[in-house]
Amino acid sequence: WLRSACGARNMEGYGLFLVLLVSALLLGFLSVLFALIWVFHYREGLSWDGGSAEFNWHPVLIITGFVFIQGIAIIVYRLPWTWKCSKLLIKFIHAGLNTIAMILAIVSLVAVFDFHNAKNIPNMYSLHSWIGLAAVIFYTLQLVLGFAVFLLPFAPVSLRASLMPIHIYSGLLIFATVIATALMGFTEKLIFALKNPAYSTSPPEAIFVNTLGLLILIFGALILWMATRPHWKRPPEQNSKIQQPNGGTPEGTEEESTMTDCSNTDKSDVEFNSEAAARKRNLKLDEVGQRSTM
Amino acid sequence: WLRSACGARNMEGYGLFLVLLVSALLLGFLSVLFALIWVFHYREGLSWDGGSAEFNWHPVLIITGFVFIQGIAIIVYRLPWTWKCSKLLIKFIHAGLNTIAMILAIVSLVAVFDFHNAKNIPNMYSLHSWIGLAAVIFYTLQLVLGFAVFLLPFAPVSLRASLMPIHIYSGLLIFATVIATALMGFTEKLIFALKNPAYSTSPPEAIFVNTLGLLILIFGALILWMATRPHWKRPPEQNSKIQQPNGGTPEGTEEESTMTDCSNTDKSDVEFNSEAAARKRNLKLDEVGQRSTM
Repeated sequence: WLRSACGARNMEGYGLFLVLLVSALLLGFLSVLFALIWVFHYREGLSWDGGSAEFNWHPVLIITGFVFIQGIAIIVYRLPWTWKCSKLLIKFIHAGLNTIAMILAIVSLVAVFDFHNAKNIPNMYSLHSWIGLAAVIFYTLQLVLGFAVFLLPFAPVSLRASLMPIHIYSGLLIFATVIATALMGFTEKLIFALKNPAYSTSPPEAIFVNTLGLLILIFGALILWMATRPHWKRPPEQNSKIQQPNGGTPEGTEEESTMTDCSNTDKSDVEFNSEAAARKRNLKLDEVGQRSTM
Repeated sequence: WLRSACGARNMEGYGLFLVLLVSALLLGFLSVLFALIWVFHYREGLSWDGGSAEFNWHPVLIITGFVFIQGIAIIVYRLPWTWKCSKLLIKFIHAGLNTIAMILAIVSLVAVFDFHNAKNIPNMYSLHSWIGLAAVIFYTLQLVLGFAVFLLPFAPVSLRASLMPIHIYSGLLIFATVIATALMGFTEKLIFALKNPAYSTSPPEAIFVNTLGLLILIFGALILWMATRPHWKRPPEQNSKIQQPNGGTPEGTEEESTMTDCSNTDKSDVEFNSEAAARKRNLKLDEVGQRSTM
């Protein structure tokens, strides 16, 4: 049903994509759930009082925003049922999800600094804090630069084309670094918080949070796999060109269609599905180097 | 000199590649040097006595083998002055470097287990140990499978072609995971070892090892960038086909030339450098999906 209604049959290996997507979503939800169980069942819960319950916002918001939402933002272009929508709409969703993730990450930093200051614990001494702060700064830069170049209508096509591989690489590198930083954070917190019984005696909380670390790592691996398969890339242009035959956007450029809804999905299905057209489109893109993800 | 003698001028963006390669080598050497300074200047040095000096083999061997040598093994196909050599030779170098890295990683694990057992410290309780052991196991599997499929002459071309994207993805994922695990290891060791003054008071050793963490992270980022640029891929076949016009290896397949030296570099330079041939080669590869790195 979903395939025919949304044109998803145009995607090669659609079944596998769906399995991986559902697995990633389950792992993401499970990670957020584990984070909540960690802070409510094993720790002091959540509040904003300068105590441990304020610190606890840090893992919850990082896992929700900086891991799960960022991961979904990365693969939003790959969802085949959005291929009928205008690219501009998907760009707004991509930027919007990343903005939410950035805000949650910044709030989660405020929680830690506030907690440290209330408890007279030094800030920014650990490798976790160095790399984590760098990740938030680079993530913000990436978002601002991405907005200016790819969303605002001023950047020339050539600039977009030359920055796109860097944008993709930086995005995936920051995502991977965020996950590495989260794993360092679990390590720190478990060593500091588990004293009697100690982390080294493997109490239930230790096993539980180690498992959370594995969940996040596998979530990241799935997102990176989906994001880097060239045949799962959103097919550019063809789409809006067929649906807007009077739009006049030149083939193979980054020009936007002005259409921002994607309800009108039944017209061009046959033509879009034509194998020859798809192959032609692929070759064209390879020539301008636009398919060189990562 | 190097360019014309070795055919490197066939590489697009050769200058930038060279800058990144030299930077990565410097960062790699500097990381190993930092690891040695850490254990000799700040810690108990190296020995095999069940004490802390035996543990110290762990960071030294991991950084030397599992980070630096693995990183070089990943990009060995990208070095343009090896493009005249037979692919088989480069495969042996790739497999050889990875084997050395695996042996060093295993010895470094033995050092930790031996140290733990001598000191009655539990094994395998930390997230670092879980992910680190998984990385060593998957790395070994990757090496064995890679040897069986890509080096032994039995696997059919179709199997090689379909496993290659998985081999590349797994390799880069394991490499990134190893770096993440190293960063978790630094975090653990600094918290455990720095008591008076504590890690949180940022003594010189803390700043020094945090810096080592950053060096390794940037080294990894450079390797991942170089490994995932499609235009820096080794051009397959054309090379050995031109140098062995009687070899009869079909174009665009994974068949090996039997030539394993690369001293004979002057003959086919002009023909190989022909733009039209290069474009034809790229298109061919895109069609069979072989250029879809990551």
